[in-house]
Amino acid sequence: MFDKITIIGCGLIGSSLLRAVSKKKLSKQISVFDKSKEVLTFIKNNFSINVCNDINESVKNSDLVIISTPLSSYKEILLSIKSSLKKNVILTDTGSVKKEVHKVISNFNLKDIYWIASHPIAGTENSGPQAGFAELFEGRWCILSSEDQSQKQKIEILKNFWQSLGSKVKFMNFEDHDHVLSLTSHLPHAIAYSIVRTAINNDDKFKNDIIQYSGGGLRDFTRIAASDPIMWRDIFIDNSENILKVLDSFSQNLEEMKKAIQSKNSEKLIDIFTSTKKVRKEIIRTGQDTEKPDFGRK
Amino acid sequence: MFDKITIIGCGLIGSSLLRAVSKKKLSKQISVFDKSKEVLTFIKNNFSINVCNDINESVKNSDLVIISTPLSSYKEILLSIKSSLKKNVILTDTGSVKKEVHKVISNFNLKDIYWIASHPIAGTENSGPQAGFAELFEGRWCILSSEDQSQKQKIEILKNFWQSLGSKVKFMNFEDHDHVLSLTSHLPHAIAYSIVRTAINNDDKFKNDIIQYSGGGLRDFTRIAASDPIMWRDIFIDNSENILKVLDSFSQNLEEMKKAIQSKNSEKLIDIFTSTKKVRKEIIRTGQDTEKPDFGRK
Repeated sequence: MFDKITIIGCGLIGSSLLRAVSKKKLSKQISVFDKSKEVLTFIKNNFSINVCNDINESVKNSDLVIISTPLSSYKEILLSIKSSLKKNVILTDTGSVKKEVHKVISNFNLKDIYWIASHPIAGTENSGPQAGFAELFEGRWCILSSEDQSQKQKIEILKNFWQSLGSKVKFMNFEDHDHVLSLTSHLPHAIAYSIVRTAINNDDKFKNDIIQYSGGGLRDFTRIAASDPIMWRDIFIDNSENILKVLDSFSQNLEEMKKAIQSKNSEKLIDIFTSTKKVRKEIIRTGQDTEKPDFGRK
Repeated sequence: MFDKITIIGCGLIGSSLLRAVSKKKLSKQISVFDKSKEVLTFIKNNFSINVCNDINESVKNSDLVIISTPLSSYKEILLSIKSSLKKNVILTDTGSVKKEVHKVISNFNLKDIYWIASHPIAGTENSGPQAGFAELFEGRWCILSSEDQSQKQKIEILKNFWQSLGSKVKFMNFEDHDHVLSLTSHLPHAIAYSIVRTAINNDDKFKNDIIQYSGGGLRDFTRIAASDPIMWRDIFIDNSENILKVLDSFSQNLEEMKKAIQSKNSEKLIDIFTSTKKVRKEIIRTGQDTEKPDFGRK
């Protein structure tokens, strides 16, 4: 139980945190800051908590400060709050890239502040405080990263916090996190954006047909490609090194497939398709998805 | 109501047709052929219908013959059945590519046979007769293609057949079908295979982590990339011209995004992500998906 938790940024993730922390009564007091007046009004109208127009006020006396904003705003936020943070506060975030923000935060040389990064791997394609819900973190992974082993006790507190929200917690260093996520999340998103652009820009004459028959695969990509533009711009910029490497490797794989199609190399194509079928089995075996077929939505 | 329907090939689609036709009593007699002994045994054990070990026998006196096999087997099937087909039979299929098989079938110069292509845009990632179910076609599109306008009456019969299974029917010529489907279905599949190969082959050290955190986007691609290898080999070979064109255009779009990431071109990235968000809205507006967020499966 915390005395006070502060949530900075109240979109899909921040507002889900707010809902979950309230519902599970994890803190005596919750304070929320968002730079958008509309968001603050929504929070005021829908929750009986302390909404702050002043970011400094919002973090005062807080034991746990959670930054849930796009990555590009961390620096400005830190500049604003650094002198108002309580001694021994846990400072965390919910961002999808770690190495760059860790650099930014380390450069502040904050004293008596426990900076431990969090990445709850949870979300939907919708954005904004209306889109949040208390169950968002249940059964999801949350990856914690910290470079300072002296923080053990605080790491334990933060781990318990995420577990109270229903998450399964893992530890990973900043670099490994960014590498793994570039493959499991950033690559699929980069590709989804490119597919949707290809399908739609390509040929206006058939645009309506393409949308009409999108159930054959395209539709699922449009969902991924509908995620928040600012959030994804920041991810691509902050994790550019890993993402570019992974995209190059993807392009090589795609070229290999193109060649197999061009030469009608039946054996090679079967090889490719069989190897990916195995991965699926592995994902089901480890419980990351169910065997139940996805019949699609009508 | 047909007197006799023959289904050649009894995998996911063929066995779903069998289930749906039986359930809705659309034919007095149903005959099923499959070249696999295991499949025929499964059908014998689970359905009270006429299972044929002889493909010629299976099509005799049939009013509607449906080929539900991989595209590469059409020619052999046609060679086997052409002299046993009933006069004025409707010959159709369920394949995902049309121009090439239309050429193959036209070259047979069949007399008194009504060849009208069908493409039910329906399926799951599972294969085989165990995976089928009667409701597979409900609410799904089925595209019919025919070049011969004298077939009007027969087209109407086939249209009614698919509508009886719950499908919505549209007409498209062979070329347009292959172009539209290369964008809505074949491109997403080609990409999904390449993504999964990139994510898994790329870096064995992190293989377990990558599978563990696949919920962030990758998991959905593994589902698409688990579809039947033979079926997809045939699609890529039969529709190679369209698919290669579309893949080139995709690669151009991806290069554009890579450049924007490399140069940290914030404005360009936002442009890209905003344009794809609009497509999503269009797809929801036309009823191809719901607004309900996809929270993923645990």
